[in-house]
Amino acid sequence: MDGLTLGKIHPTAIVSEKAVLGTSVTIGAHCIVYDNVEIADGAVIGPNSILGEPTAAYYREEHHENAALRIGKGALLRSGAIVYAGSRIGDAVEFGHRVTIRERTEIGAHSRVGTLSDIQGYCTIGPYSRLHSNVHIGQKSDIGNFVWIFPYVVLTNDPQPPSSILQGVVVEDFAVIATQAVIMAGVRIGHDSLVGASALVNKDVEAESVVVGVPARKLASVRDIKSVATGESVYPWREHFERGMPWEGMGYEVWAGTQRVPLRAHPRSAPE
Amino acid sequence: MDGLTLGKIHPTAIVSEKAVLGTSVTIGAHCIVYDNVEIADGAVIGPNSILGEPTAAYYREEHHENAALRIGKGALLRSGAIVYAGSRIGDAVEFGHRVTIRERTEIGAHSRVGTLSDIQGYCTIGPYSRLHSNVHIGQKSDIGNFVWIFPYVVLTNDPQPPSSILQGVVVEDFAVIATQAVIMAGVRIGHDSLVGASALVNKDVEAESVVVGVPARKLASVRDIKSVATGESVYPWREHFERGMPWEGMGYEVWAGTQRVPLRAHPRSAPE
Amino acid sequence: MDGLTLGKIHPTAIVSEKAVLGTSVTIGAHCIVYDNVEIADGAVIGPNSILGEPTAAYYREEHHENAALRIGKGALLRSGAIVYAGSRIGDAVEFGHRVTIRERTEIGAHSRVGTLSDIQGYCTIGPYSRLHSNVHIGQKSDIGNFVWIFPYVVLTNDPQPPSSILQGVVVEDFAVIATQAVIMAGVRIGHDSLVGASALVNKDVEAESVVVGVPARKLASVRDIKSVATGESVYPWREHFERGMPWEGMGYEVWAGTQRVPLRAHPRSAPE
Repeated sequence: MDGLTLGKIHPTAIVSEKAVLGTSVTIGAHCIVYDNVEIADGAVIGPNSILGEPTAAYYREEHHENAALRIGKGALLRSGAIVYAGSRIGDAVEFGHRVTIRERTEIGAHSRVGTLSDIQGYCTIGPYSRLHSNVHIGQKSDIGNFVWIFPYVVLTNDPQPPSSILQGVVVEDFAVIATQAVIMAGVRIGHDSLVGASALVNKDVEAESVVVGVPARKLASVRDIKSVATGESVYPWREHFERGMPWEGMGYEVWAGTQRVPLRAHPRSAPE
Repeated sequence: MDGLTLGKIHPTAIVSEKAVLGTSVTIGAHCIVYDNVEIADGAVIGPNSILGEPTAAYYREEHHENAALRIGKGALLRSGAIVYAGSRIGDAVEFGHRVTIRERTEIGAHSRVGTLSDIQGYCTIGPYSRLHSNVHIGQKSDIGNFVWIFPYVVLTNDPQPPSSILQGVVVEDFAVIATQAVIMAGVRIGHDSLVGASALVNKDVEAESVVVGVPARKLASVRDIKSVATGESVYPWREHFERGMPWEGMGYEVWAGTQRVPLRAHPRSAPE
Repeated sequence: MDGLTLGKIHPTAIVSEKAVLGTSVTIGAHCIVYDNVEIADGAVIGPNSILGEPTAAYYREEHHENAALRIGKGALLRSGAIVYAGSRIGDAVEFGHRVTIRERTEIGAHSRVGTLSDIQGYCTIGPYSRLHSNVHIGQKSDIGNFVWIFPYVVLTNDPQPPSSILQGVVVEDFAVIATQAVIMAGVRIGHDSLVGASALVNKDVEAESVVVGVPARKLASVRDIKSVATGESVYPWREHFERGMPWEGMGYEVWAGTQRVPLRAHPRSAPE
């Protein structure tokens, strides 16, 4: 259609000669692609997006050179994306609208970042994670694989604001953080845990535990939560939910049995 | 003025030949209007807006046809609106800036949606409702008439995230939800009730009641709330506030007496 | 670079003949600068920004004239700024992306406003204040000098919503408001105080006190807070933090001794 035709670079898009575009790349109307952006095959960049946004150094250094930004194969960045130079967006990643990603952010393949989310840079998000709308990820956050973060969650990083200390939050694999929870600087959210909506989490959350409240306290094991509808357990969610996950159609257990190595050789996934 | 001249289509706007424009429609600079968008007489579309944004199906179906989007008469959508194909925006609706409205959303006449609000689609908002800045409305939400929702409120829809269950929130007529409240999936907010700021509402709220806290508990009847200034009751608000409402200048009671049928034949407005 | 070349007006920018530009002003691609905007020397306006956005009166008055908007020397407004006619942005102010500033807002020199922040107008922010991402400042707010406000904080203004009463929040100099706190209408936040994350503040906060919780209660004096790392006091922060402040390199005490008059002749800075 007129503002975004698949496989085409829109004539109103401003694309640097120093950008590298793969085959069948789509760039929508009014986009700006700065120097040293690499967009892999089949990626779709929605209208009004800015890729390779320069960091603050651009405004003070006369011969500033943009760090490389890579957008992976088949990624779909909906309109209004702003992605800084110096980040890496994995293959098949999907964005909502008006997503802002600052420098030195690495987002793993197949992850999603919702409308209005604001990722402050210097952080890592593993593959297959799901950040919903309007999530705020502070610098130095370290988010694992298969993590779910719901709207208006904030991951902070300064234990005594304002200070020069930056202690990022660690979110281990398969954790779920519900709407409007705030995670304080330096906290570790254990794998397969569930942080309740509106919780204020000021200390580490054990694996597979449920925490709620302001400040958050442990309520139960996630295994104690039963579906109101069926009376059966619903957590850890990976045993009960498949949509969009690599185990879709076969179930988590079968799929995990096909994986030769742990998902991630990382302290987030501590051995059980 | 140069980016938005009333009654004109800006020369930089990209408007599909399959869009249908009424008389005296204004479209600002850099707008994109996709196929099958109908904009009624006198509507104003601010710069940088995208109307008829295609749904995800566009990216996988070769011969995708955009569902219709209708923007009502005299609507004012400020700059940066993104409205998906397949929604209906009523007459005289007013948006702040950077509003995002997904597919299958119906917004009643004279309602307002504030800056940065994010309506996730598959939901209904009755006429004369007021959504302030940065409100997040989950899919399947059902919002009545004359409802007020204040900044950073989130209406959720998944009772055991992540799951495939979608249980929208119901907000009955004349309800007020204050800043940063979170409403859990499937909750019903009774008519004329007041949800306090920062509340976490995990069960139904009775009509005309005030709830506060995390989790929210009933504090009083709204009729118990007195103005600090005058000592008089201030709720239900429809009896004390008129600005922008159809009873402006005559009072709610007189106006209601002129209405032959209930505002909405809907379980939200349960008979009293 | 192609969308924003320092010192240049991008050819796709739409700039009113009634705008007044200083020397070495940068205006990025797709910007709109309406009538009566004055941009001082060396200011940088990122792509997709709208300056001098007309107020609601424009849509109903045939011969509407835009009120003046002034952008100070060396200001850096990152992409997607929307600033209304009738505001004043001080020298060396810095914005993140997609900041929205409504009419009659005055922002003091050297202040910063983060990505997605939404300032509703009719308010004042003193110099050297720091508003982080996604802060919502209600009309009639009065924010002092050297104030820190963290993500998703909301300053409200209606004590009995909806009403026609507007009671802005007052934030005195050097106060710190942490992530997702909500400040109720008419509350005064004392100088050098610290409002905890997720707090709901419904009454005045004494100078140098720490408040936390929903609703917020006084926990301690800020002087009781010790660094986990060093065991030493960290508040009032002005005695321990310098980055970007006018006392950088000399310390607050030395710098304050060089100031002949109080920072601000204002009730916010009550004599101690």
